[in-house]
Amino acid sequence: MEKWKTLGYYNGVFGPLEEMTVPMNDRACYFGDGVYEAAYVGNYRIFTLDDHVDRIYRSASMAEIEIPCTKDEMKAVLTEMAQKLESPEQVIYWQVTRGTAMRAHVYPDRSVKANLWITCTPKAIVNAYRKIRVITAEDTRFFHCNIKTLNLMVNCMLSEQAKKAGCEEAIQHRGDRVTEGTHSNVSILKDGVFQTAPTDNLILPGITRAHLIEICRRLSVPVREEPYTVQELMDADEIIISSSTGFARSVCEADGRPVGGKAPKLLKALQDALREEFIADTGIDPGLVPSGDS
Amino acid sequence: MEKWKTLGYYNGVFGPLEEMTVPMNDRACYFGDGVYEAAYVGNYRIFTLDDHVDRIYRSASMAEIEIPCTKDEMKAVLTEMAQKLESPEQVIYWQVTRGTAMRAHVYPDRSVKANLWITCTPKAIVNAYRKIRVITAEDTRFFHCNIKTLNLMVNCMLSEQAKKAGCEEAIQHRGDRVTEGTHSNVSILKDGVFQTAPTDNLILPGITRAHLIEICRRLSVPVREEPYTVQELMDADEIIISSSTGFARSVCEADGRPVGGKAPKLLKALQDALREEFIADTGIDPGLVPSGDS
Repeated sequence: MEKWKTLGYYNGVFGPLEEMTVPMNDRACYFGDGVYEAAYVGNYRIFTLDDHVDRIYRSASMAEIEIPCTKDEMKAVLTEMAQKLESPEQVIYWQVTRGTAMRAHVYPDRSVKANLWITCTPKAIVNAYRKIRVITAEDTRFFHCNIKTLNLMVNCMLSEQAKKAGCEEAIQHRGDRVTEGTHSNVSILKDGVFQTAPTDNLILPGITRAHLIEICRRLSVPVREEPYTVQELMDADEIIISSSTGFARSVCEADGRPVGGKAPKLLKALQDALREEFIADTGIDPGLVPSGDS
Repeated sequence: MEKWKTLGYYNGVFGPLEEMTVPMNDRACYFGDGVYEAAYVGNYRIFTLDDHVDRIYRSASMAEIEIPCTKDEMKAVLTEMAQKLESPEQVIYWQVTRGTAMRAHVYPDRSVKANLWITCTPKAIVNAYRKIRVITAEDTRFFHCNIKTLNLMVNCMLSEQAKKAGCEEAIQHRGDRVTEGTHSNVSILKDGVFQTAPTDNLILPGITRAHLIEICRRLSVPVREEPYTVQELMDADEIIISSSTGFARSVCEADGRPVGGKAPKLLKALQDALREEFIADTGIDPGLVPSGDS
């Protein structure tokens, strides 16, 4: 089989991502009018694929976008694309946009089908045990954060702000209440309890977040899905940043102040359990890959 | 000169809009990461062009996007494109996106230049005196509405909701406070006063809105740039929906209830003055075009 260094796919056509083009009139281009997913691929296998496919169908439904294929068809084409990349370790990203039509805010005619985009790019596995630094910032996004849409400009601006501060993520809060990162969920450990914001319209229901909750239940760690404040964040025993490509890393510094580091054993138990799931799904051990560092 | 039925332009390359393509990795595609403008073209002349060009530079600055040309260069290419369309009556639309790069929330290297997109499509002049129907809806957008970004999914969903209700626009409010339409500003006339939401981060500083304020000052109509409530909207003498392609139309029905219609003389004075500006800029009289109805 021919192998590719990078891969872009658009409605059945594929090629090197850098050379791929899309119609100017795709509604992604004018409105960010689409929903997306990204998952980590190890050993050419897509980690937690079913969860991601279920979620993009939920996002599309909330956004009133009709996905033009079945879940099984989506899984098949994603799996096929992942095989075509040279690198066994990848991020696979896909989005469904509300079709191609002359620019108008109202939806196109029902005859216009949604578009399926896929990209595959090589990415080394992150070291899930490495601690990261963050900033905190007011959450100024819209009130549809439960839908994984392409309206991500605020997330980009905050990510850049974090980078300029020498940090890897920005933890957002609406007033006092912690919501989530720019592309991650945020949870805390305090007095042996795993606490994380509830899945309302202010956060994305993260897949790694859901797996951490399952793991906690299995390990008899109490789970509290309730809002918590910035002060509680700063005072937590551990702060956990979770995402599909970043797993569940902990925070060592927020806004320049040392945080967390007070429940290393419980933190490692959760991280180890997540690693076991990854090994079971993909057949490789991320703990044995010290090079990947982002 | 060769004339086109529709026109798309991307970084110097142009052709029929329906056939134009753009790189998949343009950040518009993944993040809606760009800013835009749209203006009406009559008689091949772009109405209030200077205002629009000034505003996209302000939007870009707030979004930390560096526009890769001067204002004069932008005006020249826009004017050139408008000439190439077959129809003298058009909408000219343009956007500047934060460059083309592999998907990452953080900004690309500084060596990556922003991209300039333009589209020209035929559009008959609206009948600026025709009254329209609207719905009202909670404003669930982000807190950067003063930047004219491509993050417009909520605007699209609300526009569609208005259309399904047989209406042409949705007037949004944050709690009690009226903000703006999905692609227009909203002002009211009450007891001889022109009132409109202040230009904070909750509304776009509309160009037609600004011209209406200037006109009021010229006509000695008191202007109040202060928030007003949904109840004040419903009780107003007139409700004015203003935009660059829709001019300043008034509302006859909101959420199925009759509204406005109580200050027809003042309303018409403002509409007439705006029409005079349009005639002065373009050399044609929109009042003499009864066909255009959207």
